[in-house]
Amino acid sequence: MRTTIGIGLLGAGTVGGTLLRRLVGDHEAILAKTGLDLQVRRVAVRDPAKARSFELPAELLTTDPRAVVEDPGVDLVVEVMGGREPAGELVAAALAAGKPVVTANKELIADRGAELIELAAERGVPLLFEAAVGGGIPIIRPLSETLAGEQIRRVAGIVNGTTNFVLTRMTEEGAELSEALAEAQRLGYAEADPTADVDGHDAAAKAAILASLAFGVWVPGDRVDREGIGDLDRIDVVYAAKLGYVVKLLAIAERVGEVVSARVHPAMVPVDHPLASIRGATNAIFIEGPSIDELLFAGPGAGGEPTASAVLGDVIDAARETLAGAQVAPRIRFGEGSLVDPGSVETKWYVRLDVEDRPGVLAQVAGAFGDADVSIEAVWQEGTGEDAVLLIVTHRAPERAQRAAVAALEALEVVRRVGATIRVQSDGP
Amino acid sequence: MRTTIGIGLLGAGTVGGTLLRRLVGDHEAILAKTGLDLQVRRVAVRDPAKARSFELPAELLTTDPRAVVEDPGVDLVVEVMGGREPAGELVAAALAAGKPVVTANKELIADRGAELIELAAERGVPLLFEAAVGGGIPIIRPLSETLAGEQIRRVAGIVNGTTNFVLTRMTEEGAELSEALAEAQRLGYAEADPTADVDGHDAAAKAAILASLAFGVWVPGDRVDREGIGDLDRIDVVYAAKLGYVVKLLAIAERVGEVVSARVHPAMVPVDHPLASIRGATNAIFIEGPSIDELLFAGPGAGGEPTASAVLGDVIDAARETLAGAQVAPRIRFGEGSLVDPGSVETKWYVRLDVEDRPGVLAQVAGAFGDADVSIEAVWQEGTGEDAVLLIVTHRAPERAQRAAVAALEALEVVRRVGATIRVQSDGP
Repeated sequence: MRTTIGIGLLGAGTVGGTLLRRLVGDHEAILAKTGLDLQVRRVAVRDPAKARSFELPAELLTTDPRAVVEDPGVDLVVEVMGGREPAGELVAAALAAGKPVVTANKELIADRGAELIELAAERGVPLLFEAAVGGGIPIIRPLSETLAGEQIRRVAGIVNGTTNFVLTRMTEEGAELSEALAEAQRLGYAEADPTADVDGHDAAAKAAILASLAFGVWVPGDRVDREGIGDLDRIDVVYAAKLGYVVKLLAIAERVGEVVSARVHPAMVPVDHPLASIRGATNAIFIEGPSIDELLFAGPGAGGEPTASAVLGDVIDAARETLAGAQVAPRIRFGEGSLVDPGSVETKWYVRLDVEDRPGVLAQVAGAFGDADVSIEAVWQEGTGEDAVLLIVTHRAPERAQRAAVAALEALEVVRRVGATIRVQSDGP
Repeated sequence: MRTTIGIGLLGAGTVGGTLLRRLVGDHEAILAKTGLDLQVRRVAVRDPAKARSFELPAELLTTDPRAVVEDPGVDLVVEVMGGREPAGELVAAALAAGKPVVTANKELIADRGAELIELAAERGVPLLFEAAVGGGIPIIRPLSETLAGEQIRRVAGIVNGTTNFVLTRMTEEGAELSEALAEAQRLGYAEADPTADVDGHDAAAKAAILASLAFGVWVPGDRVDREGIGDLDRIDVVYAAKLGYVVKLLAIAERVGEVVSARVHPAMVPVDHPLASIRGATNAIFIEGPSIDELLFAGPGAGGEPTASAVLGDVIDAARETLAGAQVAPRIRFGEGSLVDPGSVETKWYVRLDVEDRPGVLAQVAGAFGDADVSIEAVWQEGTGEDAVLLIVTHRAPERAQRAAVAALEALEVVRRVGATIRVQSDGP
């Protein structure tokens, strides 16, 4: 039986470079364990002269990614260049040519996943993307295969290591967001331009993929309701701790009746919830359903080594299927479905108000909430005089009602400023 | 394209009955999500007259499991009858006939897995057993597929819900083992005959499967070094808490240099370790490796619903491969390898000694440890006079040295009794 698979790589950065070291260095170990002879045949890089952490004959490198896809010696294409284009066109070309594709590109899958998955199904070749969500944590495969028969209710968790590192520093050391972010950059946990992480774009792409796989309804990344941590104030992290909460950036994919909700936002998580103890760059994802109750997956959510490990697992799986000569049946089918109106999503809310420090203020504030049909669970006053602050935690209310309440509060003369509004997780992750 | 798969079930007990309800009740939802038309064609039961929780035409039931395997309408066989035989012969017959098999039978896989997996590979049909370890937690697939390229160092955790329920009750409510076990039986967490759980046989079968998949070296269930919780005394659970530990029954599969260790035993786990907080019938498994660092999987480890969910995931996967017409390449290959000498495995130990309460006792006790090359980390005295007890925690020492120390202690006149010896986990799970 044939056991050799020629591999072409698009990109040789952090993940690609690590993968190449593994493919070359662990070649014998992989052969012994899986029976697969994985041969690197072509690698597209931007600058062939650049020093690399892996050793490959120079003639395998090319600056033309098309040449990798079209190389007749390349049986399987690994896309680790990132970004939407030209990655998307290259992946589509490889699939169209009947070549299996493994990618770690969450942005691409969240953007063009439905189309690419359909193309892969038409051609009967695997398109695998375990590394796109949760780095080294196996989550895509359990979700789309082991749990294929489960009527999943919710997938929720911490899927962005950079922001979790920043929030952990803010929580544990009282750091300002900007300080924590600078430290994350120094330590290599954050990019030079951390916008995609801080603004929640990265987490939103992952939420889109999780929602699509969990519910079989395609949710594009740009339809995810998204709020990042950019506006988060240190003081609310401190108040959260006082109230028994930890602030986390959550990605949530949920079935609400007949519709699907996919959202990313900071949330106050009770300090005794397992997600509250997920520190630094670790990721943790809960899957909930009627049969499985609650499953937890946790581990390193980013970084070259864990991500390359997930890519390698996909490469081995795709190679095995290719050698088996399977016309692979699609693993995922997307049906009709609609997204929830974000305004209707109910949570509890934390609201921080700078207020005048005089009698009757609370009555007016409570009135504004009441008029918007939002009921108050608890109120604390912090500071006095110029520094008077009201902290309010509401009962569960739709986002629409909550926003109406905030608008009414802003119009009150006794409210100098609505300092912050943060969702509070009250039920499950 | 053909999308119908005829399913035959061997067994319709807790897991089988739940699976049948899902196959019938969720037929349309599964069809919509996966494109698979899963048809139950034949079900082998012991007593066809018995009342069932599922609705099936009476003519589908048979008391002859061979008839299920041989039924030409059955494309895929699900074995949920349990036990080694006749389950083993039936699974072998199905595979030999080229029919994919899904089983939840850890005992069978731990006993005859190597042979059955080879048979499945020869015939090019899937043999899947996700439900055999961790109930509803996806662990087999991540271990054998996503992590196929990872040089796994250790897999360890809590894999038996019954004993974890019992230990949780002993820890939190000070219950005696027998009381906690009786409660587990009342609540349906323990069988009428709980020997397989209490003596660690169930956990040992799971440890064998985990070790085999993690290291690619076949470890039969009866080669697992095994100690159950049957001799565990309530008082040591109490002392453990005083020393900052929680007693758990751990299954550990570890690579020690060139050899593999697979073992099951009670262990004191530091109270701040994630495994310490795994309560009741929940299972939790850590996988450690150089790239992934540490992955955690947690969820419901037993019960009809979670287990049936894992079986259903395998059924969907096997059906998909069958329809793809794949000559499935073996997912797992087992190479040569040897098992560690249990006597050489190093851990810290907790030792409880009933001693004479007089000067010089500690010197003699310390001498016995020293002579066996076991060094002492800490000593506490509890009680006085007749009730004098020494609690000792040693540094890491090989089991052989530890046993020599215990033999020497038993020979000391000042030691009335070696009350207990329990391993202490000091590094990782």
